[in-house]
Amino acid sequence: MTAKSDKARPTPAPPVITGRTAIIAGNGSLPLAVADGLRQRGQSPFLIAIKGEADPELLARKDAEISIVELGGLIRILKAHDIANVVLAGGVRHRPEFSAALKPGNGNLSALFRFLRAFRLGDDGLLRAVIATIESYGFRVVGAHEIVPDILAPAAGVLTRKKPDREGGANIAAAKVAARAIGALDIGQGAVAIGGRVVALEGVEGTDAMLQRVADLRSARRINRQGGALVKCAKPQQEVRADLPAIGVSTVENAAKAGLSGIAVEAGRTLILGYRETIAAANAAGLFIETFDQEAG
Amino acid sequence: MTAKSDKARPTPAPPVITGRTAIIAGNGSLPLAVADGLRQRGQSPFLIAIKGEADPELLARKDAEISIVELGGLIRILKAHDIANVVLAGGVRHRPEFSAALKPGNGNLSALFRFLRAFRLGDDGLLRAVIATIESYGFRVVGAHEIVPDILAPAAGVLTRKKPDREGGANIAAAKVAARAIGALDIGQGAVAIGGRVVALEGVEGTDAMLQRVADLRSARRINRQGGALVKCAKPQQEVRADLPAIGVSTVENAAKAGLSGIAVEAGRTLILGYRETIAAANAAGLFIETFDQEAG
Repeated sequence: MTAKSDKARPTPAPPVITGRTAIIAGNGSLPLAVADGLRQRGQSPFLIAIKGEADPELLARKDAEISIVELGGLIRILKAHDIANVVLAGGVRHRPEFSAALKPGNGNLSALFRFLRAFRLGDDGLLRAVIATIESYGFRVVGAHEIVPDILAPAAGVLTRKKPDREGGANIAAAKVAARAIGALDIGQGAVAIGGRVVALEGVEGTDAMLQRVADLRSARRINRQGGALVKCAKPQQEVRADLPAIGVSTVENAAKAGLSGIAVEAGRTLILGYRETIAAANAAGLFIETFDQEAG
Repeated sequence: MTAKSDKARPTPAPPVITGRTAIIAGNGSLPLAVADGLRQRGQSPFLIAIKGEADPELLARKDAEISIVELGGLIRILKAHDIANVVLAGGVRHRPEFSAALKPGNGNLSALFRFLRAFRLGDDGLLRAVIATIESYGFRVVGAHEIVPDILAPAAGVLTRKKPDREGGANIAAAKVAARAIGALDIGQGAVAIGGRVVALEGVEGTDAMLQRVADLRSARRINRQGGALVKCAKPQQEVRADLPAIGVSTVENAAKAGLSGIAVEAGRTLILGYRETIAAANAAGLFIETFDQEAG
């Protein structure tokens, strides 16, 4: 990815990654962006597609494929291909049925999943446990943003020609409080506010489905107020090496279809996938994109 | 309404209501239940349907019709028909566009709406302001549950043959925390948890649409875990004379379609519309309905 901004933005120096890196690839464009970032450094990434999640373009280039609950199989693949580093990249749309992880052949890992099941961990707890397990086998888990640092949303400011007006600011403020509250409960990372009021909260359905819901509520005239803002932010307890909130061109397009005025995301802990294209899409649609600091109210 | 329970439950004595009572009727079956309750006491209720909200059965029996923003017109109707008491009953699906309230003819009330708009009050603030305005003209605003007390969810306990198992209890606990959090933010009153995790939060779309979303996520195999619970509870700052959370037969049917195991609602601050029919529907579908105390975790 060669993300360049309409405005100048400093790009942090990429960290030194030694040894071969495996990308465990969920859906979306992030896994291929990470793969391209590694290739630009002369490295040859090992692409492991998650069954039922990875995009067709990635499936065409995959080196291996695993089921999301086959942690045992994953470790074997990593060892067999002399992997040093692991990147968890992309979304996972399908919640695993953990009883599938208890089938014979998953060996001692079934104990892990029994543990997870017993304690009913949320996404965040589950991710931490998966990362800890991979690391316990001697692999280094790195964040996608450590490979392609320019995908992180830049420091607080407006990235588009359009700026949020007073009502836009009120929408951002209201949606931010809600997004943080549901993030603290490890439920979701996004909220939409219109007319200063939160109208939709993101659960398992994801951001695009939430934006479609807002569009439907507008069509049904159950929301009559114009404008509105989508806010996405990381959870307070966010594991930054996986599952960072992300926006991209499709987010901008769906926000426009939902009649929103713009999008605000947390600086440094949100990914902008395809930065130049995303900002261009927002400028073309007349939407604002703003970033805000983690600490600021 | 002649709600009778499968189990014995004490019915509080109805309060003394003197003078004619007007019912400002939104959607759902509550307005007619209140009307029937008043008739059983020998009173003749005055039915005012909210345009675009009231059900066909109510529209057939209405005495007057108003737009939700015509507070000026409402006061004139109440005065003209010698009304003493006002009940706000039923849901309002369509958020008003407050600029419509600023049109000529709404007189001094436009000041109220300008005020509301300026301060971007939530549902709760808006309801309080509407109630305060109606009372400032000398009318008494009473809650629907003061007319038909047996529609309130009874004291904490299981109302159905089926009881929540351990997983059901974990789902109720998780959804309760989420429902209270979004209630405190004046966003919504309901949440669904499956496998101990919250998967859907209720915004403007309402409970039935949220349950449909859960059913869709299951069809798409994005939720694979069985069971789940819907929780509804009042906001901490709830104005109990309007907008109490409600469940009824359709809620039970939609929860069953979403593959849930049951429903939990807050005792004393949630309405069960058609108590006997609702419990019978839950028993027929094999769902539990449980009530919990406001204070208990």
